[in-house]
Amino acid sequence: MAGGGAAASALSSPWRSLLQRALDGNAHLKHSTFFQLATVGGGGRPANRTVVFRGFQEQSDKIQINTDARSNKIGEIRNCPFGEICWYFTDTWEQFRISGFIDVIDGLSPDPVKLQLRERAWFGSSVKSRLQYLGPCPGVPIPNDDLVKDAHLDPSAGPVDAFCLLVLDPEKVDYLNLKSNQRLMFTRNQKEDGSNSWMADKISP
Amino acid sequence: MAGGGAAASALSSPWRSLLQRALDGNAHLKHSTFFQLATVGGGGRPANRTVVFRGFQEQSDKIQINTDARSNKIGEIRNCPFGEICWYFTDTWEQFRISGFIDVIDGLSPDPVKLQLRERAWFGSSVKSRLQYLGPCPGVPIPNDDLVKDAHLDPSAGPVDAFCLLVLDPEKVDYLNLKSNQRLMFTRNQKEDGSNSWMADKISP
Repeated sequence: MAGGGAAASALSSPWRSLLQRALDGNAHLKHSTFFQLATVGGGGRPANRTVVFRGFQEQSDKIQINTDARSNKIGEIRNCPFGEICWYFTDTWEQFRISGFIDVIDGLSPDPVKLQLRERAWFGSSVKSRLQYLGPCPGVPIPNDDLVKDAHLDPSAGPVDAFCLLVLDPEKVDYLNLKSNQRLMFTRNQKEDGSNSWMADKISP
Repeated sequence: MAGGGAAASALSSPWRSLLQRALDGNAHLKHSTFFQLATVGGGGRPANRTVVFRGFQEQSDKIQINTDARSNKIGEIRNCPFGEICWYFTDTWEQFRISGFIDVIDGLSPDPVKLQLRERAWFGSSVKSRLQYLGPCPGVPIPNDDLVKDAHLDPSAGPVDAFCLLVLDPEKVDYLNLKSNQRLMFTRNQKEDGSNSWMADKISP
């Protein structure tokens, strides 16, 4: 794809087909939908944690992640709204580093379209997953195990306050294949009409 | 371990036994020694990539990582010398988030002890691993595949200029076990004599 930037930019998000192939090739592994999300945390230091891929937003490349609105990362992301996903596929030896702006959508969002996306994400996750948002605030000391009570949830009830949807809008995708030792760098260019084009460059691993 | 901070601090690095158990429990997986290292990159944005655990420095908790001195992360780390490792063990469902100061040791280090550590790391890695440091600068466009020549290396030759050892000195370890749903936060306290003690607290997952 060297010198093929112009050709590649005519395609819509050329890295998506590589990612889909990796997802298919590793689908037998439960952890294939887990990746590490880096943000800038307190004191300007890096923070990093495993999160679960909750699919793309419809008709876009935006990556969805469910999280707890009470976790530290929400304040961190509001302060520095950028993230880099590192997604390593253990069976096919492929790495995707995906960086971009992160939108935080909690129940206080004034945008009805975003609130609808959040609601869809809530009902799209299992009741067991939803139950964790009824538990105690993440990261807070547990003085006594006996105080942690069983939570109950009406499966038809909408998202609770603690449920938050993160949406990462990819700007750059750095793809590395450790089997073929190939690396491709995809860079987004936003056109005047708001649509995206992507440049692809073969770079040294 | 709730309220057991004082008791735990009497032990040396209580998280090490948990990490060793995870390493043993996942040793059959090649990727069990891979983790994601987050740093703060250009423009204050987060950066994240998969790297390989190269063991602890002798008689310490310091984590060693080999890297290419020509990669972007070296400049980034010199600018903001902190990192957070996110180490997810896919078979035992355990996550370790390990944050701390990162020391960059390249061939220009004025400290003979550090240069010795770098040399040991060089000879401790396979000849195949060492060969990558003779390749082209990482992240640079490859204009033509034909220009990438085979590299040759004398196995008894010491580290090349591009070989760099990173040493992360853990300050905080956030341990999460997704099977038992338990989370422990280990925090280092440096004593006046330079030795470390660790506090352990059970926190909400």
